[in-house]
Amino acid sequence: MKSDIDALMHAKNFDALVVIGDAQHNPPMFYLTGGGHVNNAILVKQYGQEPVLFCNDMEREEAARSGLKVRCFGEFPYDDLLKEANDDPILAGAMRLKNMFTDLGLVHGTVSLYGQTEFGSSFAVFSLLQKIMPELSFIGEPRDTSLFMKAMETKDESEVARIRQMGRITTKVVGQVANFLTDCEVDKDEILLQEDGSQLTIGDVKGKITLWLAESGVENPHGTIFSIGHDAGVPHSTGKPNDLVKLGQTIVFDIFPCEAGGGYHYDFTRTWCLGYAPPAALNLYQQVYAVYQKVMENLDLNAPYKDYQRLTCEMYEVNGHPTPMSHKAPIEGYVHSLGHGVGLNIHERPWSGLTADDDNRLAVGVVATIEPGLYYPDENLGVRLEDTLWVRPDGKFEILAEYPLDLVLPMKKWKK
Amino acid sequence: MKSDIDALMHAKNFDALVVIGDAQHNPPMFYLTGGGHVNNAILVKQYGQEPVLFCNDMEREEAARSGLKVRCFGEFPYDDLLKEANDDPILAGAMRLKNMFTDLGLVHGTVSLYGQTEFGSSFAVFSLLQKIMPELSFIGEPRDTSLFMKAMETKDESEVARIRQMGRITTKVVGQVANFLTDCEVDKDEILLQEDGSQLTIGDVKGKITLWLAESGVENPHGTIFSIGHDAGVPHSTGKPNDLVKLGQTIVFDIFPCEAGGGYHYDFTRTWCLGYAPPAALNLYQQVYAVYQKVMENLDLNAPYKDYQRLTCEMYEVNGHPTPMSHKAPIEGYVHSLGHGVGLNIHERPWSGLTADDDNRLAVGVVATIEPGLYYPDENLGVRLEDTLWVRPDGKFEILAEYPLDLVLPMKKWKK
Repeated sequence: MKSDIDALMHAKNFDALVVIGDAQHNPPMFYLTGGGHVNNAILVKQYGQEPVLFCNDMEREEAARSGLKVRCFGEFPYDDLLKEANDDPILAGAMRLKNMFTDLGLVHGTVSLYGQTEFGSSFAVFSLLQKIMPELSFIGEPRDTSLFMKAMETKDESEVARIRQMGRITTKVVGQVANFLTDCEVDKDEILLQEDGSQLTIGDVKGKITLWLAESGVENPHGTIFSIGHDAGVPHSTGKPNDLVKLGQTIVFDIFPCEAGGGYHYDFTRTWCLGYAPPAALNLYQQVYAVYQKVMENLDLNAPYKDYQRLTCEMYEVNGHPTPMSHKAPIEGYVHSLGHGVGLNIHERPWSGLTADDDNRLAVGVVATIEPGLYYPDENLGVRLEDTLWVRPDGKFEILAEYPLDLVLPMKKWKK
Repeated sequence: MKSDIDALMHAKNFDALVVIGDAQHNPPMFYLTGGGHVNNAILVKQYGQEPVLFCNDMEREEAARSGLKVRCFGEFPYDDLLKEANDDPILAGAMRLKNMFTDLGLVHGTVSLYGQTEFGSSFAVFSLLQKIMPELSFIGEPRDTSLFMKAMETKDESEVARIRQMGRITTKVVGQVANFLTDCEVDKDEILLQEDGSQLTIGDVKGKITLWLAESGVENPHGTIFSIGHDAGVPHSTGKPNDLVKLGQTIVFDIFPCEAGGGYHYDFTRTWCLGYAPPAALNLYQQVYAVYQKVMENLDLNAPYKDYQRLTCEMYEVNGHPTPMSHKAPIEGYVHSLGHGVGLNIHERPWSGLTADDDNRLAVGVVATIEPGLYYPDENLGVRLEDTLWVRPDGKFEILAEYPLDLVLPMKKWKK
C-alpha cells in the first residue's frame, strides 16, 4: 500500500524516488498525485519526507489538487539555463534537474527513476545529469519487482471501492452486449443481423462496446478483446473487425476499461456461444469451468499465487492439454498464466507464473484475476473465464463484480 | 515526411534509430508501424535499410500488418538469458538487445533512441547496454528538434486525408454541442436547464462531448477544454465539472481528439457566448477575430511561422495587451504562442514561439494551427479562435474543416 513506500525505500536502500511524465495514464505518477491535467511534471520523494511535485506554472492550480507540495518550473528559468548551456537543451534540462534536486537537499545517495515518458530525451538528460551529479546514483528497477509494483500490490479500501465501481460498470456493459446480441435476428447461415438487415461484424460489436463504456464515463485505452472462431483460440488476438458474428462459435469477450484519466482498471472475461454450443465447445468450457471452480474453492489467504497456476496445469495435464508446466511456450492447450494483479496497471503484481518469486502471495489487500482458459485455434475454439477478486481484511476472497458464467446465450428470436 | 528519414539520419550522422514501446499512443512507433495491438516492441531502423520490428511471439500476426519485417523475441529466449545473467532482469534485457543488434549487424556507430515507455527500467537497460556494447553510442535527442519531429513536420497526402477526416468528425461534434446547448431551456438566473429541469453543468456538456466523439469512433485521450467565466481566461484550465452553463459568458471550447488507437489528431477552438455577448466580451472577441483574419490573409508559403506570432503580438500591443513580446510569461492578455503543428502528436513541429529556430516554416505539407487568443481571468473573460490548416502543394493555405466563427449562439427558446 501507499503507506509502505518509506519502508520499501528503506529495504531497497533508496534515498529518493523521482517520477517523471504526465499525471494521467502514468501509474506511479497517478498513484502519488491522483491524476489530473498535469503534464511533463517531475515528482521527487525523498526517504521519510512528503513528495514535492514540480510542474509547469500554468498547471499549478491543477497540480495543487493532488494535495502535495507544489513548486513551479518557473523558479528555475529555462531560458537562462539554456543560455548558460550554450543552447544545448539536454544540458539545460540536466542543469534544471540539478538545481531542483540541490534546492531540495538531494545531493547524494541512490535515486530510483520511474514514469511513463518519451524515452530518448529523458535518457539523454538523465545520462548527463549522472555526470554532473556524480554523488547521486541514478538507477532504474526491473518493472515487475519495482518499488511501485510492490507498493501497489496491496490496495487500501478506497482503492478497492474504485475498482469495485469499475467492476459494476464493466459488468453492466457486458450485460448490454449480451442483450444486444441475443435480440438480433439471424439469417439462414446463422449469422446475426443488424436492424438494417446487414450482417453483424465483430467491428460493429466493438463499436457498441466503446460507446457504452463512454456513456458510462470510463476509458478503454487498451481496447477490448471480442474474438470469434480461430481468433478466440489466440489469447492475444483482439478479434478481426470484419469477422461475422455467428451462432455456435466460441466468442472470447475480455474487457478491461479504466477510470477516465488513466485510473483504476477492472478485468473480466466471459466465453459465449450464441444460440447453442457444439459438443467440442461445451466440452472445453466444462474443463475450464471445473478449473475455475476448483481454484475458487481452494483460494487461501497468503498462499503463493503460483500454487493455483500449478493446480490449473495439473488439472489440464490430466486431460491431455499442453500447459506451461510441460511445454516451454505452448501455443495450444493452456497457454498463459492463471492471473495477475489489477490496479492502475491492467497487469501488475502479484504474478502467478510458475517462475514468479514466492513474494507473489494472495495477501490481504491484493486485487487479482483468476482466468483459466483453453485454446485450440486450429479447431476454431477458445474458452476463458475471468473474474477479479479482492482478498478482504477478514481473509475471504470476494469477486468484485458478480456476473453469470453461462456459455450459451439463448437467442430471443431464433430456435434451432 | 517519412521518406526524409534516411536523409535526416545522414544529416545527423545517425547509424540507427531504435524505437521502443507500444505501437499505439506512441508517435514514432505509430509513424513507422501504423499502430495496432503490438506492445513493448522494439523497432530498429539502420541507415539505408528497411526497419525491423521485434515483437512478442503472440503478437506476430498483428505486427505483420505493419508491412515491416517482423521478428520475434522468442528467437532470443529470455529464460536462457536470465540464467546467464544470474537472474538479473536488467542485464538479461541488455543482453537480449545486444544479441538482437548484433544479429542485425548493428555493432558500431551512433544509435538514437525514441519511444513512449516506462522510463526507469529502460534507463537501466540501455545504460547497461552502453557498457556492454561500447562501440555503439546510444544517444537521445531533445524532443522539439528530434529526427521524428523533423520528419513528421511535413505530411504526405495520405496523412493529410486522415487529419482532414478527423477535422470533419471534430466539427460535426462541435455542431452537435452547439445544437444541444441552443436547444436548452433557460431559468431566471440565465442558467441552461437539462430536460429533467436540473441546471446544466460543464461536466454534463463534457459527458456529451465524450459520448459523441466515441459514437464517431475516435478517441479523446487528452480530454476537452470547455471552460466558462474565470476558467475561460486560463488557457490550460479544462473547465470545472460543477460550473454551471450560463448565458452571456465567454465559453472557450477547445477540442483535440485523435483516431482510435492513438493516430492523427485535429485541433479546433471556438469561443461562444450563449444568448448574448456583454460589450466587454464582444470587444475582446473582435480584437481576436481581427488578428485571426489578418494572419489568415497574410500567410505566405515558406514564411517563418514565428513571423505571425510577432504580427499577433504587435497587433495586441497596440491595443495595450501584455504579450510574450513585452513580458516574460504574461498571465493575462495574450499568453501563449500562435500555433503548433498537428499530427500524431497534438503539439508538434513547426513551432511558432518567438524563440523558435528559423527552420520552423510554413512549408508545403505542414499541418498547423492558427489560434490567437486574449485572456482576462479576473474579468471572467477569455477568447480563442483556432483552426487547423494545411499548406498545400500549390502553396495555398487550406483550413481542413471549415466551421462558423460566430461568438454569439442564439438560444432557440429564450429571448432577452
